[in-house]
Amino acid sequence: MTTPRVLVLNGPNLNLLGTRQPEIYGKETLDDIINQLRTQALMAGWELVALQSNHEGELIDAVHAARLDGTLAIIINPAAYSHTSVALLDALNTFDGKVIEVHLSNIHKREAFRHHSYISSRADGVIAGLGSQGYQAALDAIIATAKNA
Amino acid sequence: MTTPRVLVLNGPNLNLLGTRQPEIYGKETLDDIINQLRTQALMAGWELVALQSNHEGELIDAVHAARLDGTLAIIINPAAYSHTSVALLDALNTFDGKVIEVHLSNIHKREAFRHHSYISSRADGVIAGLGSQGYQAALDAIIATAKNA
Amino acid sequence: MTTPRVLVLNGPNLNLLGTRQPEIYGKETLDDIINQLRTQALMAGWELVALQSNHEGELIDAVHAARLDGTLAIIINPAAYSHTSVALLDALNTFDGKVIEVHLSNIHKREAFRHHSYISSRADGVIAGLGSQGYQAALDAIIATAKNA
Amino acid sequence: MTTPRVLVLNGPNLNLLGTRQPEIYGKETLDDIINQLRTQALMAGWELVALQSNHEGELIDAVHAARLDGTLAIIINPAAYSHTSVALLDALNTFDGKVIEVHLSNIHKREAFRHHSYISSRADGVIAGLGSQGYQAALDAIIATAKNA
Amino acid sequence: MTTPRVLVLNGPNLNLLGTRQPEIYGKETLDDIINQLRTQALMAGWELVALQSNHEGELIDAVHAARLDGTLAIIINPAAYSHTSVALLDALNTFDGKVIEVHLSNIHKREAFRHHSYISSRADGVIAGLGSQGYQAALDAIIATAKNA
Amino acid sequence: MTTPRVLVLNGPNLNLLGTRQPEIYGKETLDDIINQLRTQALMAGWELVALQSNHEGELIDAVHAARLDGTLAIIINPAAYSHTSVALLDALNTFDGKVIEVHLSNIHKREAFRHHSYISSRADGVIAGLGSQGYQAALDAIIATAKNA
Amino acid sequence: MTTPRVLVLNGPNLNLLGTRQPEIYGKETLDDIINQLRTQALMAGWELVALQSNHEGELIDAVHAARLDGTLAIIINPAAYSHTSVALLDALNTFDGKVIEVHLSNIHKREAFRHHSYISSRADGVIAGLGSQGYQAALDAIIATAKNA
Amino acid sequence: MTTPRVLVLNGPNLNLLGTRQPEIYGKETLDDIINQLRTQALMAGWELVALQSNHEGELIDAVHAARLDGTLAIIINPAAYSHTSVALLDALNTFDGKVIEVHLSNIHKREAFRHHSYISSRADGVIAGLGSQGYQAALDAIIATAKNA
Amino acid sequence: MTTPRVLVLNGPNLNLLGTRQPEIYGKETLDDIINQLRTQALMAGWELVALQSNHEGELIDAVHAARLDGTLAIIINPAAYSHTSVALLDALNTFDGKVIEVHLSNIHKREAFRHHSYISSRADGVIAGLGSQGYQAALDAIIATAKNA
Amino acid sequence: MTTPRVLVLNGPNLNLLGTRQPEIYGKETLDDIINQLRTQALMAGWELVALQSNHEGELIDAVHAARLDGTLAIIINPAAYSHTSVALLDALNTFDGKVIEVHLSNIHKREAFRHHSYISSRADGVIAGLGSQGYQAALDAIIATAKNA
Amino acid sequence: MTTPRVLVLNGPNLNLLGTRQPEIYGKETLDDIINQLRTQALMAGWELVALQSNHEGELIDAVHAARLDGTLAIIINPAAYSHTSVALLDALNTFDGKVIEVHLSNIHKREAFRHHSYISSRADGVIAGLGSQGYQAALDAIIATAKNA
Amino acid sequence: MTTPRVLVLNGPNLNLLGTRQPEIYGKETLDDIINQLRTQALMAGWELVALQSNHEGELIDAVHAARLDGTLAIIINPAAYSHTSVALLDALNTFDGKVIEVHLSNIHKREAFRHHSYISSRADGVIAGLGSQGYQAALDAIIATAKNA
Repeated sequence: MTTPRVLVLNGPNLNLLGTRQPEIYGKETLDDIINQLRTQALMAGWELVALQSNHEGELIDAVHAARLDGTLAIIINPAAYSHTSVALLDALNTFDGKVIEVHLSNIHKREAFRHHSYISSRADGVIAGLGSQGYQAALDAIIATAKNA
Repeated sequence: MTTPRVLVLNGPNLNLLGTRQPEIYGKETLDDIINQLRTQALMAGWELVALQSNHEGELIDAVHAARLDGTLAIIINPAAYSHTSVALLDALNTFDGKVIEVHLSNIHKREAFRHHSYISSRADGVIAGLGSQGYQAALDAIIATAKNA
Repeated sequence: MTTPRVLVLNGPNLNLLGTRQPEIYGKETLDDIINQLRTQALMAGWELVALQSNHEGELIDAVHAARLDGTLAIIINPAAYSHTSVALLDALNTFDGKVIEVHLSNIHKREAFRHHSYISSRADGVIAGLGSQGYQAALDAIIATAKNA
Repeated sequence: MTTPRVLVLNGPNLNLLGTRQPEIYGKETLDDIINQLRTQALMAGWELVALQSNHEGELIDAVHAARLDGTLAIIINPAAYSHTSVALLDALNTFDGKVIEVHLSNIHKREAFRHHSYISSRADGVIAGLGSQGYQAALDAIIATAKNA
Repeated sequence: MTTPRVLVLNGPNLNLLGTRQPEIYGKETLDDIINQLRTQALMAGWELVALQSNHEGELIDAVHAARLDGTLAIIINPAAYSHTSVALLDALNTFDGKVIEVHLSNIHKREAFRHHSYISSRADGVIAGLGSQGYQAALDAIIATAKNA
Repeated sequence: MTTPRVLVLNGPNLNLLGTRQPEIYGKETLDDIINQLRTQALMAGWELVALQSNHEGELIDAVHAARLDGTLAIIINPAAYSHTSVALLDALNTFDGKVIEVHLSNIHKREAFRHHSYISSRADGVIAGLGSQGYQAALDAIIATAKNA
Repeated sequence: MTTPRVLVLNGPNLNLLGTRQPEIYGKETLDDIINQLRTQALMAGWELVALQSNHEGELIDAVHAARLDGTLAIIINPAAYSHTSVALLDALNTFDGKVIEVHLSNIHKREAFRHHSYISSRADGVIAGLGSQGYQAALDAIIATAKNA
Repeated sequence: MTTPRVLVLNGPNLNLLGTRQPEIYGKETLDDIINQLRTQALMAGWELVALQSNHEGELIDAVHAARLDGTLAIIINPAAYSHTSVALLDALNTFDGKVIEVHLSNIHKREAFRHHSYISSRADGVIAGLGSQGYQAALDAIIATAKNA
Repeated sequence: MTTPRVLVLNGPNLNLLGTRQPEIYGKETLDDIINQLRTQALMAGWELVALQSNHEGELIDAVHAARLDGTLAIIINPAAYSHTSVALLDALNTFDGKVIEVHLSNIHKREAFRHHSYISSRADGVIAGLGSQGYQAALDAIIATAKNA
Repeated sequence: MTTPRVLVLNGPNLNLLGTRQPEIYGKETLDDIINQLRTQALMAGWELVALQSNHEGELIDAVHAARLDGTLAIIINPAAYSHTSVALLDALNTFDGKVIEVHLSNIHKREAFRHHSYISSRADGVIAGLGSQGYQAALDAIIATAKNA
Repeated sequence: MTTPRVLVLNGPNLNLLGTRQPEIYGKETLDDIINQLRTQALMAGWELVALQSNHEGELIDAVHAARLDGTLAIIINPAAYSHTSVALLDALNTFDGKVIEVHLSNIHKREAFRHHSYISSRADGVIAGLGSQGYQAALDAIIATAKNA
Repeated sequence: MTTPRVLVLNGPNLNLLGTRQPEIYGKETLDDIINQLRTQALMAGWELVALQSNHEGELIDAVHAARLDGTLAIIINPAAYSHTSVALLDALNTFDGKVIEVHLSNIHKREAFRHHSYISSRADGVIAGLGSQGYQAALDAIIATAKNA
């Protein structure tokens, strides 16, 4: 039996996590978060692949790759592309597995243009405002669902 | 030291969980979910109080009560009142603890009038589309945050 | 064979029928209307249950009860809750029988906010502007449909 | 004493009733419906005149004719012209008798542009979603009102 | 030298002028108005052709005919088609002469949907609220402009 | 001569006055305000009845009761129901006396959804932003108007 | 019998008529237009008073003065204030005589913000796009109406 | 085997093709275009029926006729009725064959009200801006699809 | 100790109070109201300065003057400028004292464009619909607040 | 004489053609389509260059390159970038040749946000819903136009 | 050769510069700014005329005067009139020289109603958020352009 | 003391400056502009780094780099990304120095979708319509501000 795989995609500006506005986004770097998730995945017998990019096209390419390499689920924090990228939505629409969208902050408390996410119309679940716990909850949900399936 | 307490509020029509549209909302009843959450709370040393009501006023009263009895956090699935109840928002605005909003389904995939939640402008976190796992993730987040505080 | 049952629900302020603005709403009281309907139902071999409430939650509770007691159809005049109650819509969405929405006046001739009814997106039929005849037409339609079914 | 007269107007595409999408619009043809209504009218001592047209101008002409020949009431299913014809509205505004608007399907469940009817701002009553029973209920209401007047 | 010609087009329901709502639209019939205009035209050495129709297509046909028979100007009261007929606008867009739009009442004091006229985006001049004087003012303006040209 | 009576209605969350956000809403409790108003009423020879409820239906019931018991005027702070309750508006529409709407804070300085009040379309007067003085000004106006009537 | 009087008000920038964009607004100066109108008025036995101002307040003051000095009608070209001045609308609302609004160009062919005129909701008649003939048509209409009254 | 048939419908003002604004619409008349299409159809073994009308009702009648006479596909240039005719949309909704919508000019470069076409929500394909080539491409597509079917 | 001073500003058309539409605005002139307020002020030991202007610029100048001469509070009825004057809002934004906005009628019952007031976003309190009592209530509130400060 | 050249640009996710949702997009791969087009081009004496990219910037770079290398026309399927990329529109605005926009599916039948294409405001022609035939029709039109030029 | 002249216009409330909210608008008075600009103008051989007014009409008058006295360019900070004055826009539309609009603060960071400026649709250039440097940059640009012309 | 550094970022299609539409954008190439700016910077003792990219992600990467290498200010002409890139806005939100947004043309005179810039909500200053002078004015402002700091 092959090891199940999950892809963790992070969108623009998330490479700066932990180095800017720590009072809002916390002190953890993206590496901290990914390492923590990888451990959590491993303990459940999963492989975790992670990519961060500021380039819309690279995120789309990564989703396409996941279609072919047997990835079972995607956790995605699309950041600003949530609000503007129909192309990323279309890429996710070609992916058959589970998709969970994560936002570190509660986007519904911010500017009006952040209240709408194109990605949410494709995502199976959406988690916002739980900080890095949001990623963990997403991974928990993916693992639990796979167990029950 | 007093046992920390969390209130789990469920809004209109959620009393029917498990008995209608199980293909959408699952087969678990609300009692199943609450029992599971209570166990999860107990194991972390928390007390869990739960209320479901179809009456907007009763949900408001319950929030008021939580202000006085030392409740540390509220998990709320406001259901239809998410979209129409400024009064419930105002009640939550008077509560100082953590508030996490949970929706069983991904409301962003449903009718346009379900995309906006008054409660989200107050909630610390919002979880949608994870089914009953959403409640558990909310409770996890509350317990973890309290530990780190 | 059990007697088929229909529920007649009336929303806020309809308890005042016949006592206010008779030039608009007529001189019949709600009791007059219900009695007339009950007679009409009896003659067709139906049982009629009626409830009026100014409380959104009580109307929801009544719909829930109808799900369990074998009610075949609901005639509902949601009055002001037509325009504001997603919760009542959701309650009706859990009911499998026929739903006919009745308004005494033609709401399309009144203020713009009365032109939209959440309930209409669930109702099988909508009747407006026929005064108390609207209820009778609704009951006729329910009985006729049941016959043909 | 002259026989009271009612005009039944049917708008564009209704000539196809019974021959298209019977699962939505039923198997009755427009002739079936009109014959049934005529019988119902006769039994109440009324004369019924019927016209269907795909031409907006012909429907307007028919309303004008009804102003002069003593027609007491109009039952109109404006079909698509409900949503686009101010000219038909203006024609009905020149008619002093009772006007009842009928739609076979519940237009509030269909595309958003079908939710608004210019005709409703003139109609005394509006009935939607009751199929051909809607016409009968309209005729019932007209006859009953005339009796009480 | 040929006699200059003006076309006076009147849209739906204007055939009823003088017979309905005289307190709003006055007691003059459309024939009265046209006769008066014809006299005014004759005295200035013009020929006047008049058409009223409730059929959008006939009004378009009349504009097309005017393109070919040397008509110099069109006075048009599009009535309800002002607000809904792009086809009539397009017909007028193919006409090279002067176009003056006339409304008997001041449409800006009526329902919001009457405030916009597709025809106004083509008309050279627009006159509203002057009753039948509006037609005369339009004809005056056409004759005066032709003189100065 | 009977003592004139005024009803003071307070909507959701106002039971918490004085105990939350005193920097915004002041330190007075609702009881303080009502007692002060009662004294003011008594000195003018009026009886004052007061009700606070978080339940939309109870507020409606209270308005209905006032129709029957000879209440001359209603001072209402609808709080959150200002923005969402057509049912409460309809209840007030059945009341023939004077209605003055009071808001402690200036709602026009708050979120956009608080700028519109259904109640204002019925109220004779509206006072916002004067804190508890707003109630007193409302009572002054009611008493003065009754004197002059 | 006193000489009937008409006030001709011209709003901002109309003092420049004839000196700017003559291809649009013609070569006539405002003085030319007023002199022509004065002659037209005199021949009908009317007195004509004219004012142009770039100051909203002065135009309002002039309307107020007209209320007191027996002015029977106002011809107003509000120019840019058409689109922005509720104060000028309110001033005209206090004037009991006839008001005709004139625009030299057809405002419906220009930028969208010029399509709406506050003044039109008060004016008895509106004339646009006839150049200086518009004023003459307005004066004709006023004189003719007064004759018939 | 019967000869397959295609209907080519042209809406209002298209009878003027080639005689107005040739710099926009080209010098070909509608007859030129239809003849060219007929040749193209014949060479593929198809029969082509063509109708142009300025009357909405006649276009609807033509669609109804096509339902009965075995027409396999409709090429329609609805011209101005694209933007205003729900009735024509409903007629096409009753037709089971292929429908291709053609516009000579690119409507997306013109006024905003021309950007929306009711017909497009029914059409299988939409072609705009290719001039008379658009019809040929539509016919090509219909023939090719029929071959592959 | 210097005498505290309040400025009472009245906007366009309010000079006509008492002389127009007395059934709406009452029979009191603006002088009556100001005199009454001056007496009320004097009895509380305050000086009252009043200005009415139809000129937006003069109202702004008056606010500027109040910044320098020690005025403690402004009562302003901006009338039509409520809805259109950002400049007056900006002037009030430079004033540090209390500002209370008064409207004689309940603007929320009038045309939609009167429902929004730029001034309300600066005002501390807003009073509408109490007639001239509104000014008195405003002055009461200013005096009471100053006492408590 | 140099060989005329056409550029075929395909936007995000189109690399997956033939491998996802074949019931919607068909079984042809993008390579199949391009090869077919290249043959069609060659037979007409044209050179065809093709590029697909998920990166907005690469598509812009390709348009820039086409400006310099003598490309005569661009066929572009912008896919999701139709709806979001002003940058791609601006790039095409710098290109002097013919531009035809192609969509495989009829975007007007899909979600509302897909109904608007920035690219359409620059394209000479737009083809939607014809599947891969759309590209061929676009190439036909380009070749035919070049012949006639 | 005559000395080139530039007009510097400042709108409502700018006379208060330096005396209010210095943390936002700086400590410089309008006189300071104008003096600095005058020196800058003189050094380039230009004459500078400056006017500040709170009266819309006076600003319009000043633009009219500039048309006649040979002024080559206008630097205007319209302040609040940016958002509300079509009349000022129209005045500037009659001026043939260069117009540069200056705002001290970045209006795009403030309330939504400040994001739109009527003046920007006429201005050649717009500068916002540079404080008093904005005026200097505007003058630099005017002088440089004149040199190159 | 280190040399202060400024980053000049240019967005999509600006690499074509001087080669397209010179009547709008002038004849200067981007290199010309950058060289001129570099000289201006050097004379003030500043180092200038410049980047142009058609790729949203590269512009974001450049902003991130500027956070780390001590860049004091950014001059950015985001071109089309002004209107669509929340990601670029978020990148600039992580940068602590001064940001000035420059547009060569006055975007407020162009299509409506160009009137809004996401970047403006972050920029300290915005300059539009001054051509390449806009960059120089931006650099002037940055240097002057740094001097005064």
